[in-house]
Formats: sequence, structure tokens, C-alpha cells
Amino acid sequence: MINPPPDVVVDDLIRRALEEDLGRAGDLTSAALIGPEARASGRIVARRSGRLAGLPFALRVFRFLGGVETRPLRRDGEDTGAGEALAELEGSARAILAGERTALNLLGHLSGIATAAAEAVARVAGAQARIVDTRKTTPGLRALEKYAVRCGGASNHRFGLDDGILIKDNHLRACPSIAVAVAAARAAAGHMVRVEVEVENLDQLGEALQAGADAVLLDNMTPSELRVAVAEVAGRCLTEASGGIGLEDLTAVAETGVDLISLGWITHSAPRLDVALDLD
Amino acid sequence: MINPPPDVVVDDLIRRALEEDLGRAGDLTSAALIGPEARASGRIVARRSGRLAGLPFALRVFRFLGGVETRPLRRDGEDTGAGEALAELEGSARAILAGERTALNLLGHLSGIATAAAEAVARVAGAQARIVDTRKTTPGLRALEKYAVRCGGASNHRFGLDDGILIKDNHLRACPSIAVAVAAARAAAGHMVRVEVEVENLDQLGEALQAGADAVLLDNMTPSELRVAVAEVAGRCLTEASGGIGLEDLTAVAETGVDLISLGWITHSAPRLDVALDLD
Amino acid sequence: MINPPPDVVVDDLIRRALEEDLGRAGDLTSAALIGPEARASGRIVARRSGRLAGLPFALRVFRFLGGVETRPLRRDGEDTGAGEALAELEGSARAILAGERTALNLLGHLSGIATAAAEAVARVAGAQARIVDTRKTTPGLRALEKYAVRCGGASNHRFGLDDGILIKDNHLRACPSIAVAVAAARAAAGHMVRVEVEVENLDQLGEALQAGADAVLLDNMTPSELRVAVAEVAGRCLTEASGGIGLEDLTAVAETGVDLISLGWITHSAPRLDVALDLD
Amino acid sequence: MINPPPDVVVDDLIRRALEEDLGRAGDLTSAALIGPEARASGRIVARRSGRLAGLPFALRVFRFLGGVETRPLRRDGEDTGAGEALAELEGSARAILAGERTALNLLGHLSGIATAAAEAVARVAGAQARIVDTRKTTPGLRALEKYAVRCGGASNHRFGLDDGILIKDNHLRACPSIAVAVAAARAAAGHMVRVEVEVENLDQLGEALQAGADAVLLDNMTPSELRVAVAEVAGRCLTEASGGIGLEDLTAVAETGVDLISLGWITHSAPRLDVALDLD
Amino acid sequence: MINPPPDVVVDDLIRRALEEDLGRAGDLTSAALIGPEARASGRIVARRSGRLAGLPFALRVFRFLGGVETRPLRRDGEDTGAGEALAELEGSARAILAGERTALNLLGHLSGIATAAAEAVARVAGAQARIVDTRKTTPGLRALEKYAVRCGGASNHRFGLDDGILIKDNHLRACPSIAVAVAAARAAAGHMVRVEVEVENLDQLGEALQAGADAVLLDNMTPSELRVAVAEVAGRCLTEASGGIGLEDLTAVAETGVDLISLGWITHSAPRLDVALDLD
Amino acid sequence: MINPPPDVVVDDLIRRALEEDLGRAGDLTSAALIGPEARASGRIVARRSGRLAGLPFALRVFRFLGGVETRPLRRDGEDTGAGEALAELEGSARAILAGERTALNLLGHLSGIATAAAEAVARVAGAQARIVDTRKTTPGLRALEKYAVRCGGASNHRFGLDDGILIKDNHLRACPSIAVAVAAARAAAGHMVRVEVEVENLDQLGEALQAGADAVLLDNMTPSELRVAVAEVAGRCLTEASGGIGLEDLTAVAETGVDLISLGWITHSAPRLDVALDLD
Repeated sequence: MINPPPDVVVDDLIRRALEEDLGRAGDLTSAALIGPEARASGRIVARRSGRLAGLPFALRVFRFLGGVETRPLRRDGEDTGAGEALAELEGSARAILAGERTALNLLGHLSGIATAAAEAVARVAGAQARIVDTRKTTPGLRALEKYAVRCGGASNHRFGLDDGILIKDNHLRACPSIAVAVAAARAAAGHMVRVEVEVENLDQLGEALQAGADAVLLDNMTPSELRVAVAEVAGRCLTEASGGIGLEDLTAVAETGVDLISLGWITHSAPRLDVALDLD
Repeated sequence: MINPPPDVVVDDLIRRALEEDLGRAGDLTSAALIGPEARASGRIVARRSGRLAGLPFALRVFRFLGGVETRPLRRDGEDTGAGEALAELEGSARAILAGERTALNLLGHLSGIATAAAEAVARVAGAQARIVDTRKTTPGLRALEKYAVRCGGASNHRFGLDDGILIKDNHLRACPSIAVAVAAARAAAGHMVRVEVEVENLDQLGEALQAGADAVLLDNMTPSELRVAVAEVAGRCLTEASGGIGLEDLTAVAETGVDLISLGWITHSAPRLDVALDLD
Repeated sequence: MINPPPDVVVDDLIRRALEEDLGRAGDLTSAALIGPEARASGRIVARRSGRLAGLPFALRVFRFLGGVETRPLRRDGEDTGAGEALAELEGSARAILAGERTALNLLGHLSGIATAAAEAVARVAGAQARIVDTRKTTPGLRALEKYAVRCGGASNHRFGLDDGILIKDNHLRACPSIAVAVAAARAAAGHMVRVEVEVENLDQLGEALQAGADAVLLDNMTPSELRVAVAEVAGRCLTEASGGIGLEDLTAVAETGVDLISLGWITHSAPRLDVALDLD
Repeated sequence: MINPPPDVVVDDLIRRALEEDLGRAGDLTSAALIGPEARASGRIVARRSGRLAGLPFALRVFRFLGGVETRPLRRDGEDTGAGEALAELEGSARAILAGERTALNLLGHLSGIATAAAEAVARVAGAQARIVDTRKTTPGLRALEKYAVRCGGASNHRFGLDDGILIKDNHLRACPSIAVAVAAARAAAGHMVRVEVEVENLDQLGEALQAGADAVLLDNMTPSELRVAVAEVAGRCLTEASGGIGLEDLTAVAETGVDLISLGWITHSAPRLDVALDLD
Repeated sequence: MINPPPDVVVDDLIRRALEEDLGRAGDLTSAALIGPEARASGRIVARRSGRLAGLPFALRVFRFLGGVETRPLRRDGEDTGAGEALAELEGSARAILAGERTALNLLGHLSGIATAAAEAVARVAGAQARIVDTRKTTPGLRALEKYAVRCGGASNHRFGLDDGILIKDNHLRACPSIAVAVAAARAAAGHMVRVEVEVENLDQLGEALQAGADAVLLDNMTPSELRVAVAEVAGRCLTEASGGIGLEDLTAVAETGVDLISLGWITHSAPRLDVALDLD
Repeated sequence: MINPPPDVVVDDLIRRALEEDLGRAGDLTSAALIGPEARASGRIVARRSGRLAGLPFALRVFRFLGGVETRPLRRDGEDTGAGEALAELEGSARAILAGERTALNLLGHLSGIATAAAEAVARVAGAQARIVDTRKTTPGLRALEKYAVRCGGASNHRFGLDDGILIKDNHLRACPSIAVAVAAARAAAGHMVRVEVEVENLDQLGEALQAGADAVLLDNMTPSELRVAVAEVAGRCLTEASGGIGLEDLTAVAETGVDLISLGWITHSAPRLDVALDLD
């Protein structure tokens, strides 16, 4: 049910990844040792448990190489246990070996992010807070990494600087007041765009509420500070806790009643999920 | 002294990363709040200590946006302490804010890899073993990530399937013997290409030595098994330990006398180095 | 003050437009008749009055050809009278002639859109309604055409299917109720994304308001129907009039009190503003 | 029978148009409200009468999205009445909705041009004059727009600066005489390239004829001036009337006996043909 | 005076050529042995005599690498003797070595073609015949190779299937007569496009003349057959001799009085001109 | 059995070659004379004998055009006699004619290289020397041309500056000694990379052997000098003869006992193999 990025976006990345691994000469080892007609079959398996993301992209790699039938056994957004088979492959041995590393790199990277996101989501279960991502993504992979976040059960913040307004302290320095900033933002932006304001204390929070912000980003606040801020907001806009929040802090932050908790590390520091290709 | 990938490779990634962050409309917030003539200055700083990689690429981002002067204060391959300034920026406030996230994402990602590599290298100091990377890299970023590995003081294994021959168990199944495989590889490959053979036990090791392999990959062996293998090889070819070797295992593995220790996690699971842009 | 699309977006279009006009052999006529060292100077002029958009892009064309100095005399978003000079050019005669048509095509096309938008905006002056564009743009030029709309004083609706939610009748058929649809949209989308619902009558309007839509698109309603709808909404969400609204209808529609009036024709059917290059 | 541009040209535009509309996240609304297995069917219909161009490209859009069967009911170059169905679609509801706007924008834009061209052609029926287009096209769409001109029954002038020689007043200033210019052009250009000279009066016309021009462009002449010029030429070369000729002027211009009438507005200012997608 | 292809065409090729030679890791040897600040100077020299083409492109290579000043000593279209210096380079030693091979490959390849063309032109000196090229070019390099032909003093035939009409025997089989074919071609093509007909005997030649062809391609005829054909044409259209004409046949063919002699081998089989880079 | 470059590399070249030949308007002649439903069949034939390379790529061209079935009759790496059929085509007449030239240019160019390589290989039959190529390839076609070399029975030297280390005289000037250079190269490069040193006399040869080079390039030596050098090396590393070695020199050079003979002319100066398309 989780919507993947458009094929035109994914295919471009796959093509570049294959070019990067196959280089100018292709797979020298297979070319030397395996006949063009040789066939193989196998399964992509998880070596550790985690949340899946990117399996359709991993299988799509083999469409660029030709001669391989693939069958997914699991779906993105599901949990896998260690040792479980995720997909079956059958076809040209050369093509399977040529695509193996590219496919696994995609799947392992995105599932690592989904797994990190899912762990964060599990910590806030029961609270109303949603986990959201940031723009701290790997250059060139944002659309896929934000999809992996959704596979982990978390939500997406802005995709870029162009689809939402987030007024930060650097912007405020250029403006006489938060009220002026929010008004200027509303006037300049389209009506489909929401305006969020970063605040560092209760004074700024009061100003942002007065100015009619759609959301406030409560930056680097302790749980007790967050609790006061949430009470102050009293439902008048969305509240987002942000800044240096680790996995172990999540329960305490969620209990403050904030609507959103943004975490950079689910995209920028998630370790890879260990996946492998087992040939028969 | 560490050679970066060619500009034509780096520029393509920067362009895509900017397109990804600026989208179709550019930075809505700055457009609304900051005048086109406004100027700003600031410094890229490290929030944590680590090994630097990617600083020239991060600064190059601003050449695509125009109107920003940049001055590096440190070099890739150097260590930074927490709080140190890495570069100075001065110029168009809009351009600085538009490029901030793309620049930091590049620098933080690559420095994270360099830092992980440097930690691994530090563990084997004194031994003859070199730390090497793998092809387990983020799709589309291999050339940059392998450069970050070099900044960390480690070395590069193959860049792709086309610039070295690594005969794995999957290939050996298609051949009558290791000797036949190595001979076929030599015949097919150019004379600048080295041939490495993955072996799982002493029998295979003996075969590979007999066949004249340039290197052997000793897969998933314990330190004591590695020690026996190294003794068996006795300098006749390079020895590479590989497979599930963590940071804490490195000293023991290095003491076995292997020439190379390959580590996937320095590229695929290195957490980002925390870097930020502080405006004046 | 109007923010143009990022250079990386504009440059790609300019490059393709030049390739399209110069082809494989370049400008045969100039090559035959004009020496490589010949110089020329001239002015881009408006042959008709209108609102300017795209002048910086038109001048940027000559940076791809080299050897031409350009100086803008006017700014995007300003009105020009017939016969006014918009920019001065000086430099290589071959380069000026090679870029002339591409530059003028860009400027004339975008200024035509800005002029149409400005005419629409002028008709609703005094009312609170904002004129907004649609996704009915020329394939491949959306970012530039939406910028031209802003130069005309109008605002942008969604840039694409990915930066806002607009629930239309086709979507509602797949849902049990508007309430269910809005709730599903809120759950799936990020918190920066607004939700707008297309309604065709007062019953649907009531449902959308109940469901908490951020905006309602009032489709194909007469001014008197719009007036009733606006009263019903009573400020609880934004109201957008849409569907077959021509220039002559705008005053009546604006007087109904709607917040937004969306017009496809300002992008898809605006005639070109007549601009030319006069050489000295 | 009218030859479309090569698929490699068209596909590139479709890909960029889809990227532009789907962005990084794809169709948020459909993803939230419509299941991945949901199916839909419908028809592309004309809301107004006109000449068709671009229907195969519009249907080709859905091949990039997958899971949609398309069946054209009409052909490019045919006339449609208001309300007529042009094609049938059946398949994935998500894919149909994702491609709808891109497909309609292509079809509406190109059919608008074909309709304008067909109107111009109708005005000169009976005369020998052919209607031809210019290089005043939308940047990046020339090949498709010139195809639409052909669908309208008109003919193409040069595709670019490289496939024909048109000596204008700016070129003549750099040459001692028209005779010298034509001779230089012949010497420099290949034998497949024709040479046309822009003339503004009978003196220049005489020179051009003397010089052996293949065609003369009679710039901004009144019908009576054109008539004199045509008599002077007496069939020795092709005659083209050009410059500010509107729909209402066409009959008079055609009656002067010119061979060609070039019109910029059929490409640069043609309003879109209103087309829509009606789902069942 | 010979017009090079547009920079946008040339730059794309240079970028791909550099990517091809530098790969993912850049110049390993220079990186290991030469410091980033080391400087070098030298000259591009011709090792054999010949006609120059591509020198500006060769020097342009170094602009992509940065840090190198280049100064051309000769111009494209001039003859060089063996041992002559063609350009001077001064700057970053790493950049000079990184670009050396790409620059020399471009210059040597194109100068080889220019030299072959110049030899052919020399053989027909005194006759009225022009040497023209064909579409038998290296895939991806047509614009540059046709420019090299012009540097050799020869002329260009069609650049592609889209900028001229050449009716061959395969087309004629699908038509009732040459007259019908020429008429259909005229009707379908723009007025700037010339129509040439391939004929194999005098009957076909008569038909083509009757049909009003702009040129006739006399395929695989002996000099005496050509002489008869030229007499038959008597200046009514251009005559082109084509098919298996070698360097040694040129004088005899030219003496028949044909207007054009097309040679595939000047592009598809010209040996490279030996050029080298001599460092100080 | 000879491994072709990856499809992603080949397809990019085919697409550019088709764009180059079809231009903006496609095949004007076929469009005018041949109906869209017309069918044709034929065979690609060799007009001269030679070694085949590129047949699969030539046939792949027609997949980009659609509607053509192709059947190879021969394989790359096989010899063809003059007049032999290499492949059969059947399908859309327009598509066959549109792809004809691009397909033949690819096949003729690559088969020309394979034929030159095969001739060189034949001259050294019986000796242990392998013929190897250089980086003197046509810009943009290296991967395909090096594949053609393999089809000719020869071997590939480095694919680029990044997959092997070749220390030339220019590098040595920047180093105190060959020993220092080789040690620096080993330290900087990965363990899969081989180090070759260019030597010009016996002193340098001794140094290179001492330094542990994997191979030595014996530059511009006479057969008798080569013989002395080979004796000196005595199997301690690979020996490569290079520099101005023509076809007629090969037997003498091979008899010196060198391991490798590198030849630039098999890629940069090989005449095209004459191939054609015969329609039924």
C-alpha cells in the first residue's frame, strides 16, 4: 500500500548503479568462467531480521540485464526474520552474477533505513507522535530513502526546499519579526504549501502562534520544555520536536504530546540490513 | 595527496543532488524572506571529531549556485576535532541557504565513511595488514565512497566487476577445478588484471596456490584458521581475510599476518559525521 | 523579488533548445557570410506592450555560445510598453545570430504567459481572490511557466502530483465517503502537505468541511452558486473557483468572495509576446 | 501518412514531462486513496472541434507507467468534432491517473497547433500557396510542433539553422552585395542545402534573382507589393511572403500568387485544443 | 573560416571521452607519483605531415580538467609538416597527463579524416568536381567528422536522413515510377529540402531529369558511362558520382565532368594522423 | 564466448547514433515514399572477407525503431568470406531503412578493427607473444572497440587511466628513481592493480626489475634490443614491446620472446570492413 517513487526516477538510479559496477568491460570473471548459455537459480535471503524496503527495485535490476525471471516472496513494508527468503531468481547465470551486487546494495541500503525507522516508530507506539524524516539523505537517493522511511511506518517531512516552508533562525535574522516572516511566506507561497516556524523558546512560540503558523519546530528542547510548549500550543498548530533525539530518548519525547518527532539518523546513519544471494 | 575522483564524475552527482533538493521551484522559504541582494557569511564546522572527506565537493556545490566565495580551512584526509571550523563561506545569502543541505549531506556522508575507515586502520596499526573496502557501496556513489575510504587511510579493492578478477564459489561450480578456472581467467583477461581466488579451506588454498593466483580471499575463517593459511601461503601470493569482521575483531585478525582485511561496513554502515553550517 | 527556478533546471532547457536550433552543423548562414571575428551590437526590444518574464534566461543563452556581453535594461515582473528596449547585447556577431531565435523564443513564450496572468490579475483587483495556475503546462517547461505566472502577479497551485493532495471525483469513486478519503489522505501524506477536495454541490461541500479539508475546489459553478458556497464555508477553509472561467468572467467570479480562481488558459493558451532583436 | 518524429526524440520529452509532474514522490493523492490493484477505464475525448496531432505520443505516455492498455480511435491529421472519443484506455487506475495530465497536455498542445495550421490552410484553399511554419517554436518541442504543423496540412520551413540557408538583412550588412553573399553561401554549404534570400524591395529582389537564389523571402510587403514581386520573379525561384500576416490577411496574400506564406503564430500563439479524460 | 560544430555538441563528446578514460578513480599513476601542485609544460606536435582538424577541441579538453593554459600555434584547415608544433600547454602536471590521451585521440582521428579528404581534393584540382562525404561515419561523431571533411577542403553531403531527400533503388521499388516518387517527395518535404535520385542507367536518368530532380546520383558507373550521363544531363541538375571510387580513380572520374564525387572512405577508413604531446 | 560490453553502455551509443542520423524530422525520404504498413526483408552481407565484431549491436539498433525481426546467421569473433550473409531482417520497411546506416556503421567499424587485430594475431601465431591494444581509441567508443579487439583474438591493455598503473618517462621525471616510483605506486594503488614501467634502455630495465615491476614496457626498441632485454628479464616479469610496430614487423618482434606486443593502429587506423544491406 506504500507508494514507491515513479519508475522513471528509480530506473535512472539503477542504470547508473549498473554502469558503476559493470564499468566499460562488464563482469570479467563471469565472462571468463561461465558460458553465455549457463543457467542458475537462487534466492535473495535476509541474514538478519528487519523491515523490508526496495525489493521491487532490486528485482528490477535484472530487467536491465535480461534473461532472468524473478519472483518476490515478500513485500516492502513487511518484517523479515533472519534467514528468510525474500525472492527467487532463475535464468542466465551471467546476468544473475552481473546484477547481484547492485541489487543487494539497493535492498540492503533501503531496508536498513526502513529498519531504523521501524525501530523508532516502535518506541513511540501508543503515543500520538508520528516519526518523520529530514532532508539529511544521501545525495541522489532522496526519493528512494524517503520511500524506505514510509516502509518503516514513519512519515515524510519536506521532499525539498520547494514543497513546504520552514522558517529557521537564519531566515528570521533577515526579518523584523516572526509575524512579518509568516505573512511574507504566505503571500509568496502557493495555497497548497504549509508554513512551519522553528522556535527556540516560549517567546518565539507565542509569536509563531500569533502569526498563524501551521506548525512549529521545537528545536533542541528537553522533554520538560517540550511539555510546556505543547501545553502552550494547545492544539492550535502542529508541534514538531527536533534536534539530536536518539532512539533511547524517543519514549520520553513522545510522552510530551508532540505531534511529530523528526530524526535525521534514520536516513543518514542507518546501518545496512544484511541481505545476500544464495545460488542453488 | 589523496586523489579525488574526476570532476566530471563529481559534478554529475552534485547536479542531481541540487535538483533533488531545489525541485522545480527552488527554495521557497528564502525566496519569500530573503532579498536577492542579501549577503551572509559563515563557517562549516564539525560537531564531532572524525576524519574528513568530501570538503572540496561540498564547497564545489556553491559554484553551481553562484555568488558564493568559499575558503577551505582543512584538507580531506585530516582529522578534525569537535567544534573545529572546516571552511569559510561568504556571499549571496540565498545561494548559501540553497546549497547548505546538499553540501552538508555530501561532507557528512563521506566523512562518516572516512572516519569508520580510519578507526579500522587504527586498530591494525603496527601490523602489515591493509584495510580494504568492498563493492558494498551506496548505488551511484561508489567513486566518491571509495575516495572517502582512501581519505580514511584504507585502500580500495576492485572498483567494479571489470577491473579485477575475483573467482568465487559460484564461479567454481561452473569449472572442473581451480586450476582450470585460473587458467581460463588469465587467458581471457588483460595482463594488467590480477586474479584472486576465494577459498574456504586448506585444500582449496593449495589448489589456488598451485594455479598461480595473485591473491587468495580467505572467507569467513577464524584467526587461528587464518594463521594456518598464511603460513601455508608463505608469501607466494597476497592473502585477504574477509567476511563478517567487526571493529573489535580487527586486532586479532591483523595479528594472523594476512596482507589485506576487507570490510563492507566502512562503506555500507558508517554513521554520518555530524557537520553543520554556522552563519554569522 | 520573484524567485526564478534554479539554474540547473533552466540550463538544461537552454542546452536542449540550442541543440535543437543549431543541430549538427550549427548556423550555416552565418558561417558562410560572417567572419569569426566580426562583432555586432543591438537591443532586445518589445514590439507590443506586456509583462516581462524570462529575460535573464534569454540573456543566459548567450553564455552557452560565448563572446557576448549582455546588459538587462528591465526586470522580470515589470511591464513594458511597445517599442521599449529590454536588454543590450554586444560581442561576436556569429554568437549573437546563433542565439537570437532561442533567446527570443524563451522570452516571448514566458512573457506571453506573464502578460495573460497579469491581465487576469488586473480583472480581480480590489477583490480578495488570488489568480492561480494549473498543471496544464507545456511538457518540459512547467518550472519556467509557473515562474512566468508569478511574474504576472498570480500564484502557483501544485507543481506536480507530489506536492499537494487534490481529491477529485475520480478518487472519490474509489472511497466510501469524502470523510474517509480526507482521513486516508492525511494519514498517508506528510504534515507539510495540504488537502484540497473537489466538490460539485452543497452536499459534497458540507462533507468536505466536516472532514476538515484545507481547501475546496468548487468546480464549474456559476457565480451565484459560488456565492452560496462561500457563505456556507464561512472562512473554515480556502475556496477555489475552477473550470472554464474566461477573462470576461473574472470580475463576477471574484465578487463571490472566493479565495482562489484557477485558470488553465494563462499557461496553455497565452499568445506569445512579440519581442525582437534589433542589431545596430 | 504524416511522419512523426523519431521515438528517441519523443520518448525523451515524455520522460521529462513525467518527471516534472510526478516529482520525487509520485502521485500522492492516488497513492493515498486508490489501491495498487484497482482498475479503471475511460476515453480521451475532444471537448471542442479541431485537428488532431499527438495522439500516439499521448498514448505512449502510459507505456512509461505500465499496466495500461490503450486503443486509438482516431488518427493524427484527422478532424475531430466536439465530444468525440479519440482513444480508449483500460488498466491500472493509478497509472491512468498518473499519466492523465501529461498525456492531455501533449495532445492539447499539439492539436492546438494543428488546428491553427489547418485554419490557415483552409483560408488559402484554391490558391497555389503553401502555408509554412517558422523557427518560432517552444524551446525543446520543435520536432513535435513541426510535426503538428504537418498534421494541420501545412509544411515545414527549416528545422534549424543547420539545414538551410536564409540570408537576412543582418547577414547582408556584412557582405558587399547579395551576389557575393549567395556565392559565398553556395560555396560553403553542401549541395543538398537550398539558399533563400530575404528582400525588402524590388532592387534587392532583382539582385537575388540575378544571384541565383533558390527562394526569396518577401518581408513585410503589402499584397500589392507582393503581386509586383511575384510578377518580377516570374517563376525563376520560389517566393515566400512573411511578416505579420494574420488569419484574416491570408486570402489576400494567397491571391498574389506567392508560393509560400510563413506564419509564426501557428506555433507560438495557438491556443490549446480542449481535450479531457472521461473515466467510466 | 571553416565553421566548427556548436560547443554544446562538442562538449558532450569531450565529457564522455574523459569519463571513458578517467573512469571511476581517475589517473592512478599520476595520483601516485605527481603532486597536486606540480607543474608541467609542453607542446602538441605532429609526427607526420597532414591536414589539421580538431585542434580547438583537443585544447578544450583541458578546460574540463582545469588549471592548464593552452595556446594554439596553428589553425584547423592548415597543413602541418612532420615535427611541427601545433599548440603549447602549461599548467598542472596532473591535468595535462589526465587529458593527454583524450586530446590526442580527438586531434589524431579528425586530422586523419581531414588529411584523407585533402588528398582526395588534391587529386581533382583543376576539375569542377567537388569531393563530398557520406553518412558512413563513426557512430556518435558525425558532426565532428563532417567538420573534419570541411577542414580537408571537401564538402558535406546530407548530415542525416532528415535534411535532404535521396531516393534510392529501395525506395523506387515501392513507387510506380521515378516521376511519382519525385512528386511525392516534393509534396511531403519542405521547400528548403533538395531531392536527389539514384540512377543506374540512362533510362532512369532520363526519368529523373523529366521528374525535375535537383541532383542525380550516378551509382557505380565507369568513367565512360559517367561521361555519357553528364552529357545527357547537360547542366539541367547536379550530377554525383558514387560507389567504390578509390584515390587512384579520382582523376579519371573528375575528368568526366561530374559536379560531385562522394567518398565513404575519407570518413570510415582514414588512418589517424600521428600526433603526440612532448613535455619539457 | 567473447564477452560484449554491458547493454547499458551499448544502448547509450546506439541511441545517440540514431539521433544523429534521424535528426529532428526522421527519415524524410521513406516518410514521403513508403507507407507506414509497408514491409521488407533482407540480409546484412559482407562485401569483403574479415573478422566479425558488433553484429549483435547492429541488430539491436532495430529494437529502438520497432517492428523488425532480426536473426543472426553468424557470431562475433568468426571469420566471414566476401559475399556471405551475416543476418536476416524482416519487418517494417520504414524501420529497416531508418536503421540501415547506423547498423552498418557500427558493424563495419568494429569488424574493421577485429579484422586488423586478427591479421596481427595471425602474424605472431606460434610465438608466445600476445597482441594487445592501447588507449588510442575513438572518443566515446572505447568499450566497443576493445571488445572488437578481443573478437580479433587479441587482448586488452588498460581500459583507462584508472585500472592499471603504467609509469612513463613523464612520471619518472617527477621521481628520484624507478624504485621510489614503483614503491609509491604500490602504496597508493589497490592490490588488484598491476604496475608496469616504461623503460628505454637496459639500465632502466634493471632498475624496474629491482623495484619489482609486474611488467615492463620496452619502448621503441629494435628486435635485437628486445632480445637482450627479454634475456635480461628472464621471466621475472612480463615484457611488452611497444612503439611504431607495423604489421610487417610483427614476426621479427614476436621472435624476440616478448610476452606482449601493443599496437595502436588496430584501433585508430583500421579501415572499415565493407558490409551492406541487401533487400529482397
